[in-house]
Amino acid sequence: MSEFDVDLFVIGAGSGGTRAARIAAGHGARVMIAEEDRIGGTCVIRGCVPKKLFVYASRFTEDFEDAAGFGWTLGRPTFDWPTLRDAVANEVTRLSGLYRKGLEGAGVAIREERAVVEGPHEVRLQKSGDLIRARHILVATGGWPAFDPPIPGGELGISSNEVFHLPSLPSRMLVIGGGYIALEFASVFARLGVAVTLLHRGDNVLRGFDEDIRTRLRDALSHAGISLRLGCTVDRIEDLGGGVKRAHCASGAPIDAEVILVATGRRPHTAGLGLEQAGVTLGPIGQVIVDRDSASSVPSIHAVGDVTNRINLTPVAIREGHAFADTTFGGKPWRMEHGLVASAVFTTPEIGTVGLSEQQALAAGHELRIFESGFRPMKATISGRQERIYMKLVVDAKTDKVLGVHILGHDAGEIIQAVAIAVTMGATKADFDATIALHPSAAEELVTMRTARAG
Amino acid sequence: MSEFDVDLFVIGAGSGGTRAARIAAGHGARVMIAEEDRIGGTCVIRGCVPKKLFVYASRFTEDFEDAAGFGWTLGRPTFDWPTLRDAVANEVTRLSGLYRKGLEGAGVAIREERAVVEGPHEVRLQKSGDLIRARHILVATGGWPAFDPPIPGGELGISSNEVFHLPSLPSRMLVIGGGYIALEFASVFARLGVAVTLLHRGDNVLRGFDEDIRTRLRDALSHAGISLRLGCTVDRIEDLGGGVKRAHCASGAPIDAEVILVATGRRPHTAGLGLEQAGVTLGPIGQVIVDRDSASSVPSIHAVGDVTNRINLTPVAIREGHAFADTTFGGKPWRMEHGLVASAVFTTPEIGTVGLSEQQALAAGHELRIFESGFRPMKATISGRQERIYMKLVVDAKTDKVLGVHILGHDAGEIIQAVAIAVTMGATKADFDATIALHPSAAEELVTMRTARAG
Repeated sequence: MSEFDVDLFVIGAGSGGTRAARIAAGHGARVMIAEEDRIGGTCVIRGCVPKKLFVYASRFTEDFEDAAGFGWTLGRPTFDWPTLRDAVANEVTRLSGLYRKGLEGAGVAIREERAVVEGPHEVRLQKSGDLIRARHILVATGGWPAFDPPIPGGELGISSNEVFHLPSLPSRMLVIGGGYIALEFASVFARLGVAVTLLHRGDNVLRGFDEDIRTRLRDALSHAGISLRLGCTVDRIEDLGGGVKRAHCASGAPIDAEVILVATGRRPHTAGLGLEQAGVTLGPIGQVIVDRDSASSVPSIHAVGDVTNRINLTPVAIREGHAFADTTFGGKPWRMEHGLVASAVFTTPEIGTVGLSEQQALAAGHELRIFESGFRPMKATISGRQERIYMKLVVDAKTDKVLGVHILGHDAGEIIQAVAIAVTMGATKADFDATIALHPSAAEELVTMRTARAG
Repeated sequence: MSEFDVDLFVIGAGSGGTRAARIAAGHGARVMIAEEDRIGGTCVIRGCVPKKLFVYASRFTEDFEDAAGFGWTLGRPTFDWPTLRDAVANEVTRLSGLYRKGLEGAGVAIREERAVVEGPHEVRLQKSGDLIRARHILVATGGWPAFDPPIPGGELGISSNEVFHLPSLPSRMLVIGGGYIALEFASVFARLGVAVTLLHRGDNVLRGFDEDIRTRLRDALSHAGISLRLGCTVDRIEDLGGGVKRAHCASGAPIDAEVILVATGRRPHTAGLGLEQAGVTLGPIGQVIVDRDSASSVPSIHAVGDVTNRINLTPVAIREGHAFADTTFGGKPWRMEHGLVASAVFTTPEIGTVGLSEQQALAAGHELRIFESGFRPMKATISGRQERIYMKLVVDAKTDKVLGVHILGHDAGEIIQAVAIAVTMGATKADFDATIALHPSAAEELVTMRTARAG
């Protein structure tokens, strides 16, 4: 009998943990996975999936408005929140079931309870009390919303976890935060008919993104009717009764709303997990410190996904988990390279971005040629909607290499995913120029920019 | 005084002619352009632009239906054809004006009358009778719908030129043809509430496209309510009176419709242009035979765009015209390479394609690995719409090079434009695999296909 009960114990059945478990099992490893919440993790249960379904729901508002110019007449559309909420919840349940089936089909043992590390090879299941001895432990517990910094009365607010389950649609919503999660929900609920105020301590939204994208998105959100309070912090939140909360701000008038969504950040989900006691080094916000092979300071304990706070995106967690499993159990060592990762922000308008922003490229010492195009989408010529698509190429002036591509507008996420293939290959501006346009499309602007912006 | 009145005379102010005229003028050439119809050509006046605006109009039908699952209730939408028709006509007029301004701004002399070639350096304007002596002549007269083969009573049908100006929306429409123009209009009018029958002599639609795309599009059009009559020819068309025409078929029941759209092909627009008399060699369907520099058999006469029947797409004509002008007047010789040109078919579902189909690749002797993915779009999980997206990579088994990419589904045109950058660079399947996915998107399927189709 083996010294270990399992070859791999995975804590957390989200994107990274599930992938690692399935691949490891496919390589013949005996695998057990523990999940204290629902199988599927952030992406499936309370992130990408339900969020994007909400985004779809919200965008019908513009379809209804745009249709008039094209000859359509419709009655005044009405929106029923419980229909959306429950339909999305059902789809999440269906997907969670598919994840479970995938694990079961691969022969992974599922334990639906909290697991705590008790040593380099020991995991204690909290409900059953079982101690599992594992050759390898993979920590894939993800992240969790943080109210940061804490606000007096912050408990009157909700996080993005709860926003999917609101009992009713509020008439007013205050969103606190300026990152992509805050902006996506502000964008969604404004279009579902909620009066949305977005309050953020920074002087612009989406820190870290290209400045031209940030400014244009900020203006577009404002144009969509979201009340922006930038450079502003909340001192405390109080309950006015009757379902109304009041946020007192450091400057300016207080804000009353039925729902206050606090989306000020997320933190690695490591509290109480026993990692430090087992000798695992954690970083300042609780992240598991790992090397390029996702190994922690304890050789038998690895970590993938948001819990490591590297690039907190589903496909990154999946690839990290896959690489770990292939390397550890499949005799096929490889690494997730964290260099170029395309990402999208599903606000309306949408953002797609890959590579360096202009500011990051300058800071890295590149001499740049900047190509940009701002244009009215073809559909808007008939709908009359006031909107513009913006595209930007950040090009190294010496090597002609395309360092970054940034898109704001319809289909930005779909387009940037495909652009990322070329950028990952090391595409030059000449490669973009050599590509024949496809007309009429928005993406053709990417290959028809001929003149660099005046310096 | 010069031997010539102008350095360049361009016949036809469409995409290719206009680009050539402007670039040549920018290089200092004295340029005159003649247009017998409206400035802008097929793309702007009766092709890409008004067509895509119609497509936008038609897709609202599915938005209205899809919205219900997401919680929206709206009254029964009604559609007013004159609103769409006139809005599109106004936009076309605006764009035609922009083309005119572009030419004027570049210093190009515009003659709005028919021009006929009378010799290697002579062009006769038909209204004024002026004879212009030109150092170079560029034929850019495009293509024109052909009723091919001619059908007795065919004059009772209309072409794609007239479909933009219908006095009213018919209740029934017969579309004859199986190419992209026929399919796009069938797709549009079916969604605007017209009972559409598509009749095509071939046994499947879209000859020349990948077979997997053809079959799936055929089925999707049928699923959208278009009555398909494939492998069928029309013997004659008769007028039943009362605005109804009847098409008698070689097999099966006759088809009655208020509008019969004949979209059986297009031909280079060279009839009566004086080209053969001037010594220019024409091909079997009237196309100007040109070399890789777009030169005809008469050294002073070039031709670009659809009139040469190479690749009949706007961006190709533009690039051919640009290359001609740079080469002839700018001292910057270059060629349009006709190898890889991405294109879209704006049916619903949409097609995006670049490179070789599986059948073309096999015929060219490649040993292939085929990767494909068929999946339900995320939006459809809530809308309940029965639809699937299909993506296919045609990969050379020996070199790993991606020879072709084919997409059927939402945003296929936008996605394939960006994919085309990588494919133009010579991307391998390994390059696709090295690209990190963007989740949730449809395009991420392109970079996550791991297993080749069983042979």
